[in-house]
Amino acid sequence: MDDRPEKKKMTIIVFSGELDKALASFILATTAGSMGMEVTMFFTFWGLNVLKKNEGPIKSPGIMRKMLNRMNRGGTKRLHLSKFHMMGAGTAMIKKLMADSNIPQLEELMRMAKDLGVKFIVCTTSCGMMGLDVQNPEAFRTELIDGYAGAATYLGAATDAEVNLFI
Amino acid sequence: MDDRPEKKKMTIIVFSGELDKALASFILATTAGSMGMEVTMFFTFWGLNVLKKNEGPIKSPGIMRKMLNRMNRGGTKRLHLSKFHMMGAGTAMIKKLMADSNIPQLEELMRMAKDLGVKFIVCTTSCGMMGLDVQNPEAFRTELIDGYAGAATYLGAATDAEVNLFI
Amino acid sequence: MDDRPEKKKMTIIVFSGELDKALASFILATTAGSMGMEVTMFFTFWGLNVLKKNEGPIKSPGIMRKMLNRMNRGGTKRLHLSKFHMMGAGTAMIKKLMADSNIPQLEELMRMAKDLGVKFIVCTTSCGMMGLDVQNPEAFRTELIDGYAGAATYLGAATDAEVNLFI
Repeated sequence: MDDRPEKKKMTIIVFSGELDKALASFILATTAGSMGMEVTMFFTFWGLNVLKKNEGPIKSPGIMRKMLNRMNRGGTKRLHLSKFHMMGAGTAMIKKLMADSNIPQLEELMRMAKDLGVKFIVCTTSCGMMGLDVQNPEAFRTELIDGYAGAATYLGAATDAEVNLFI
Repeated sequence: MDDRPEKKKMTIIVFSGELDKALASFILATTAGSMGMEVTMFFTFWGLNVLKKNEGPIKSPGIMRKMLNRMNRGGTKRLHLSKFHMMGAGTAMIKKLMADSNIPQLEELMRMAKDLGVKFIVCTTSCGMMGLDVQNPEAFRTELIDGYAGAATYLGAATDAEVNLFI
Repeated sequence: MDDRPEKKKMTIIVFSGELDKALASFILATTAGSMGMEVTMFFTFWGLNVLKKNEGPIKSPGIMRKMLNRMNRGGTKRLHLSKFHMMGAGTAMIKKLMADSNIPQLEELMRMAKDLGVKFIVCTTSCGMMGLDVQNPEAFRTELIDGYAGAATYLGAATDAEVNLFI
C-alpha cells in the first residue's frame, strides 16, 4: 500500500452562467490546482454557457431550442455580471479593472485550470434539455471538456472530496 | 458493533425559490437517494415556496405578512426561472423541453425524493418571519414535510455529512 | 497528545451582497459559533459590501473605481433583498417582520458572531479589483476584520472543515 497522504479534493458545480460567479469558480479552481489539489468542475444549467464557443450559431433541434440557444447564446465573451451589467458597460468596466489589477481574465483562468489538470465535466441532463447534443457537441469548446456525465458521477466525486461548492 | 460501512450523507439548503435551482436541488437529491445516500433538505427563506400548496389563499397574521404572502405566493406551479422567465413564456418553454427530454418535472422529482426517503425539513426562523405558523401550517403541503427545525438541527446533520450544498 | 475531540469547523464564502443571503450566512455562523464550532467567513466580490462603513464616501483611485464604489456603495444599511426589494419597501418590510418575530437584525447578528469568535477574512483579490486598498482600508469597518487573504487561505481552512458553503 501507498503511504503517501492522499491528495485533497474539491468539486465545484458551476450552475450560474454569470461572469462574476464564473470568475469566483475559476479563481478557486486554479488556486486549488496550484496547491496540488484534485479539482473537478461540473457545468450544469446556465453554467454550460462558460464552455460554449464564442463564434458561430448554435445548431439545435426544434424551434424552442433554437429560441433558447439564441437568447441564451453563451460563450465567455457574452457572460454578464450578476449585477451592474448595465447593457454591458458595467461588465466591461470590471474586465478593465481586473486587467489593471493584474487579475487574469476568465479565458486565461480557464487555460490555467486546464494546465493544472482541473477536470471539466458537462452535465448530460442539461445538455438534453437545451438541445446541446452530447454525441455531436458542436456548440462546445470540446478541447476543454474531459467528459459528459450525470448527477451520479458528480456525487461519486463529491462524497470523496473535502470541499464541495455550488456556485 | 455493526461493521457495515456507514451510509454516505448529503444535506442541501434550499434557499432560493427559483424553478431552475429547485430542479437542480431535487435532481441531486433523488440521484443521491437512489444511490443509497441519506439526504436531508432544509427549506429556508424563498425556498419555503417549493413546499407551499398550489391552491387557495395563505392566511397570515397582520397586513405586512398578508402582503408578503400575496406577492411571494409560492407553490410549485408558480416558481420562476432565475433568468428568461419572460412573463412566464421562458419558464413554460423549459418545462416543455424537460418533458420532451423525458426529464421528470419538479412535482415528480419531489414525489420520487419522498419515495427514496429524502427528508424535508422546514426552517422555523423563516416561518416565523413570514407568518407561516409552525403550529398551524395550513400554507404547506404538510404530507411532504418531515419536521420543522432551526439552524442547529441543520448544522448537526451537515457536520455529519460528506456533501453539503447551499442552493 | 490531546485526547479531546477536535472542534467541528465551518467556512462560509459570502459572495453575495444581498441582505437575505447575508442574514442566512450570519444565522448559520452564529448558531455554529454558539454550538462551539470554529467558523471562518470569507467576504469576496459583492460580499465586501457587508463589511463597508455605512457613513462617508469611499475614496478609491481612478474614475472607474470611483464609479463602481458609488454604485456599489455597500454598508449594512444599504443591502437589498435578492427579490421584492421594491425601491426599498420590500426590504424595509422584511426588517420590520424580523423585529416583530424577535429575529436579530443583521447588525446584531454580526456583533454576536464577533463575540462568538467567528473569523471575518476579506478577499484581497476582490479588494484589488474594486480599489479597496488593503494597506489603507478606510472603506471597511476594520474593527470587525480579522485578516486579509486570498483563495489559498480559504482552501486551507475549507479542506480542514466539516461544512463549507458558498452563499
